[in-house]
Amino acid sequence: MRYVLILVGALLLCSQGWVAWAASDPLTAEKVQTNANYVWTLLSAGLVFFMQAGFALVETGFTRAKNAVNIMMKNLMDFCLGALAFWAVGFALMFGTNATGFFGSSWYFVADKVPEGADTAWPLAFYFFQVVFAATAATIVSGAMAERTRFVAYLIYSVVISLVIYPVFGSWAWNGLFGTWNGGTKGWLEQLGFIDFAGSTVVHSIGGWVALAGAFVIGPRIGRYDNGNQAIPGHNLPMAMLGVFVLWLGWLGFNGGSTTTANTDTAGIIVNTFLAGAAGATGAMFTSWAAYRKPDMALTGNGVLAGLVAITAPCATVTMGGSVIIGAFAGVLVIFAVALFDRLKIDDPVGAISVHGVCGAYGTLCAGIPLFAKDPSMSWSQLGVQAIGVGAAFAWALGTGLALFFVIQAVVGLRVSREEETSGLDLGEHAALAYYDFQATQQENLQTSKMAPAQQQE
Amino acid sequence: MRYVLILVGALLLCSQGWVAWAASDPLTAEKVQTNANYVWTLLSAGLVFFMQAGFALVETGFTRAKNAVNIMMKNLMDFCLGALAFWAVGFALMFGTNATGFFGSSWYFVADKVPEGADTAWPLAFYFFQVVFAATAATIVSGAMAERTRFVAYLIYSVVISLVIYPVFGSWAWNGLFGTWNGGTKGWLEQLGFIDFAGSTVVHSIGGWVALAGAFVIGPRIGRYDNGNQAIPGHNLPMAMLGVFVLWLGWLGFNGGSTTTANTDTAGIIVNTFLAGAAGATGAMFTSWAAYRKPDMALTGNGVLAGLVAITAPCATVTMGGSVIIGAFAGVLVIFAVALFDRLKIDDPVGAISVHGVCGAYGTLCAGIPLFAKDPSMSWSQLGVQAIGVGAAFAWALGTGLALFFVIQAVVGLRVSREEETSGLDLGEHAALAYYDFQATQQENLQTSKMAPAQQQE
Amino acid sequence: MRYVLILVGALLLCSQGWVAWAASDPLTAEKVQTNANYVWTLLSAGLVFFMQAGFALVETGFTRAKNAVNIMMKNLMDFCLGALAFWAVGFALMFGTNATGFFGSSWYFVADKVPEGADTAWPLAFYFFQVVFAATAATIVSGAMAERTRFVAYLIYSVVISLVIYPVFGSWAWNGLFGTWNGGTKGWLEQLGFIDFAGSTVVHSIGGWVALAGAFVIGPRIGRYDNGNQAIPGHNLPMAMLGVFVLWLGWLGFNGGSTTTANTDTAGIIVNTFLAGAAGATGAMFTSWAAYRKPDMALTGNGVLAGLVAITAPCATVTMGGSVIIGAFAGVLVIFAVALFDRLKIDDPVGAISVHGVCGAYGTLCAGIPLFAKDPSMSWSQLGVQAIGVGAAFAWALGTGLALFFVIQAVVGLRVSREEETSGLDLGEHAALAYYDFQATQQENLQTSKMAPAQQQE
Repeated sequence: MRYVLILVGALLLCSQGWVAWAASDPLTAEKVQTNANYVWTLLSAGLVFFMQAGFALVETGFTRAKNAVNIMMKNLMDFCLGALAFWAVGFALMFGTNATGFFGSSWYFVADKVPEGADTAWPLAFYFFQVVFAATAATIVSGAMAERTRFVAYLIYSVVISLVIYPVFGSWAWNGLFGTWNGGTKGWLEQLGFIDFAGSTVVHSIGGWVALAGAFVIGPRIGRYDNGNQAIPGHNLPMAMLGVFVLWLGWLGFNGGSTTTANTDTAGIIVNTFLAGAAGATGAMFTSWAAYRKPDMALTGNGVLAGLVAITAPCATVTMGGSVIIGAFAGVLVIFAVALFDRLKIDDPVGAISVHGVCGAYGTLCAGIPLFAKDPSMSWSQLGVQAIGVGAAFAWALGTGLALFFVIQAVVGLRVSREEETSGLDLGEHAALAYYDFQATQQENLQTSKMAPAQQQE
Repeated sequence: MRYVLILVGALLLCSQGWVAWAASDPLTAEKVQTNANYVWTLLSAGLVFFMQAGFALVETGFTRAKNAVNIMMKNLMDFCLGALAFWAVGFALMFGTNATGFFGSSWYFVADKVPEGADTAWPLAFYFFQVVFAATAATIVSGAMAERTRFVAYLIYSVVISLVIYPVFGSWAWNGLFGTWNGGTKGWLEQLGFIDFAGSTVVHSIGGWVALAGAFVIGPRIGRYDNGNQAIPGHNLPMAMLGVFVLWLGWLGFNGGSTTTANTDTAGIIVNTFLAGAAGATGAMFTSWAAYRKPDMALTGNGVLAGLVAITAPCATVTMGGSVIIGAFAGVLVIFAVALFDRLKIDDPVGAISVHGVCGAYGTLCAGIPLFAKDPSMSWSQLGVQAIGVGAAFAWALGTGLALFFVIQAVVGLRVSREEETSGLDLGEHAALAYYDFQATQQENLQTSKMAPAQQQE
Repeated sequence: MRYVLILVGALLLCSQGWVAWAASDPLTAEKVQTNANYVWTLLSAGLVFFMQAGFALVETGFTRAKNAVNIMMKNLMDFCLGALAFWAVGFALMFGTNATGFFGSSWYFVADKVPEGADTAWPLAFYFFQVVFAATAATIVSGAMAERTRFVAYLIYSVVISLVIYPVFGSWAWNGLFGTWNGGTKGWLEQLGFIDFAGSTVVHSIGGWVALAGAFVIGPRIGRYDNGNQAIPGHNLPMAMLGVFVLWLGWLGFNGGSTTTANTDTAGIIVNTFLAGAAGATGAMFTSWAAYRKPDMALTGNGVLAGLVAITAPCATVTMGGSVIIGAFAGVLVIFAVALFDRLKIDDPVGAISVHGVCGAYGTLCAGIPLFAKDPSMSWSQLGVQAIGVGAAFAWALGTGLALFFVIQAVVGLRVSREEETSGLDLGEHAALAYYDFQATQQENLQTSKMAPAQQQE
């Protein structure tokens, strides 16, 4: 109770820094433009927030019924805990004044002194736009470690990602996006001229490589590679496809909103984004058709996401034709990446490492290829800068990810028991059944007497 | 047929009042700002409309498969009938010229004389924003009375809520929001200085207390309290969680759009809203973990909603730190409220009374606590004003709700037969099965010969 | 490989036409208004894109579990292939310079010379808004031919619709919407003064009549009319209803966004749209109640869509009272249309022909009825113009549709084998099961050994 009071006091104190809103200037075109920028940024952020639902649907649909509640809970709570962590600390590490180029340190609790003449409400809109990106990075990891991770371990690592891993790398590439509010500092990668418009690397690769670390440390699901490659089919493919549509819609905000400005540039960015998604699906569908004799739904859905992830870095700087090519090859690449990780016995139930890690890196490199660029003066040296960023992301995320998961494994325990994994995490972690009225083939021998106290209370 | 013709005639007549749109003034910053306000208000209203889907998903997911069609139909039709009723009469009672402070009376069919110099299209945008709020109040009731209410009774009471109960209370607190169009009148609660920015009381508590009246009059579901507290598990928890995400997205429009102005204030309102939702989930999850030994999904999902309902009244006037505290305690409160109503044997299948009634009242009171307020000059006397509004809402909604349900019970019949409740309302009310291809454990002895004539017609 | 290189080269070349974005003019009210127009148009287009998910949910929910993956794949891929086809060619046929009034021919790959003084980014925003409409027309057809069409045939015909059938008719009615960018040409129907504000005919009837051609050529599903009218119930009605909500939300963008301008007219358009949807549901529910003794969910959901389709043409020019009447009768009409096509043994699993074809035509005619018009000077001769457009759409879409499907039937094969239709297209076309963990009553004798190589790879 004492801690609650201290916490309450701290929150009340920190909120003192929150500046008052006031606006009674005569209405100018500049002021209306500012208002339009808020509308665009906030609605775009809303669409990106809704991607949490998309990730939850994709991950739940592609896994088994006995783990559906657990996956939904994870996708909800990584946003909830992550939003609080990013508000308190993460935002400050990412966008605070960045003396070294390696991390920021001001604007804790999104509260600080606003520079003379700057808009006092912008840090709030900017935080809202950024926090939904941070949550995306965290939630990507959940897919690769699905169906076997302890819930408490999940909560811990998703907070660490939102609190430290994502923001620190973010400060390298995006610190300057906060403009005058942090005094105009920039991270070391953006000082090099690294292009990652909306986060192929900052968001997707970071999430993907932490996911790789996690899937490696935790090991494959029971039975997954017992006799070669034993696929474990998802329990609700239409749900997964709905998730793909939701994610695609969200990408309108993810890429289009990354201007944080209501201007005409957004049109080209969004067109590039949608063309790349369409091309990604097309590339993946035909590749799966050729490789496996049938147009595969799971791979085609991942093809959409692969195209979207790949175009996220270059969407503002490449041509439409370039976007189609980038997306189409992403759709091909993701299928080979999935096959590769299977050969390496890295069990990734939803293909998160391939979609976000591999295609994020690939798309970031594409942003440095002059053939695709709208700017005819882009030099091939840009590709070198892109490679530095891609490599830095890989090293940072895989390194900190491995450290994180080994520590959790040693201290808390990362994986549920064999018995719990077999009977399902819904019963073991949450004492619930996702589909109580239905006989799930693999759940028939479960006892409903294991149901939650909350659902059986006397 | 004669009545149809009379109705058609009446509709054609009333539509004569609809003013023509025309705008060919030179473009000024004011005019562009007006246009931006429309964009913001209309898109926000669209998000709030989509909350109907969110409510439908939450309510359907948390109840049994045999009632899923009925619940979907209810959530669709309360919007459809409610939109027509609120267009014809409700809007006029709520926002028409309010001579007494207790109800309005002009702008029936959203058509009336527009004051000199006022924007002629605004009443339409304003109606659209308000009708989706009215529908929210109506749909809340459906959750608490799910799985046992006659469909025809449902249609009647949801129309009465949209036609009278919601608008009359709304006129007490929000009549002045219509500005010059109703001549500048205000309701008695807003004259007192009552703060309910986006409707913790006006929308959520009104819905919640009518729901309390309904759940009390109709009584618990068969078997619910036969041996102490026998929980009846929902049939699709992932569907319910998708509903929570949809509702959360909708709240961006619910609170953020309630400025009905595209300005920079919206940023802080939305940040407060999302922090409170995140804190609500966090509070509820840990409380359920402590109380029931497992982090419970249903309670955590309700924790999000509890935080969002609570912050709806104070979101524009409290600090970020205050929002986190308000939301977190709402997440705790909702769990104890659910337990309390269970002890009272008030059977509320989705927790609507606790989430909307209790947390709506709690949040409205929080808007009057100076510790949370951004304005350092707020006095504790504000809390007294808030308490008056909270008490008035409780008395009005519970009183009219009890009257409404007792009358329906006496005249039409409120509850389905025991046999129909056991076999499911989908068959009894709609002659349909929600999941025809699947064996639902509790439906196995149903005859498909009971299917709808429309599905079996010869 | 050589073809890939040629394709890559062609794409790179065509993208050279893509004009650079630049804007550093001093900020004027006009410029801010332009920016607001982009925000409105792009977000509206995003909502219309999301209608793809709505169509997918409605169609999947109203059909059998054994075809769910196939339907999801179709609804994804018609957008993906259609977006690429409409980018390369369709947009040019529809909005390019239209010398004859019968088809356009410039702006292939959405790249061409921008006229002096015109906004260089607008063609991109306009393409994005139009491509989501084109995808809607294509996806409508999928519903009427569900559960029996070969996947490869589906891909072919949906590309032909997006590439030729939809754009050519579109150029007759909407070519002038592209304004100065195509030099100010117009199609022959718009020269006559044909009113189809957002596409009751251009989008919905065209889709509906091609669907009629398809359903006629392919014939009914096995067992559908073996003993009179044997309804085949859908497998997930809540999913279908979620689709209805998603579609309704999307219509906010579909009709409201069709101003492509952030102005105050959008309010009335959206209010008319929502009133008509609400009235359509109401009309359909009571009609189904009277005709079949129960309020039927499938028919009521289709009533919403009927009202929305009908109001799409007249939403900008009729009164609110007119909208309610138009919508309500659409809800009645759709039920009789469904019964009529059943009597004709045209098997349309989701009612697409009735909703989109019939109600699209009906709504377009309503736009020519002076009783409903806001403009008191409209003459009854408008109804004649509307009838010409409605007739032209019927002739064009049915004629080209029949030709298309007969050719596909002869060359590729339109329908799956009896064995595959019985066991389900998911296994036959995609080697997948939609709900692997559940026993679907009609799937119990299926071998999981038929699963996709991708899900069984060794």
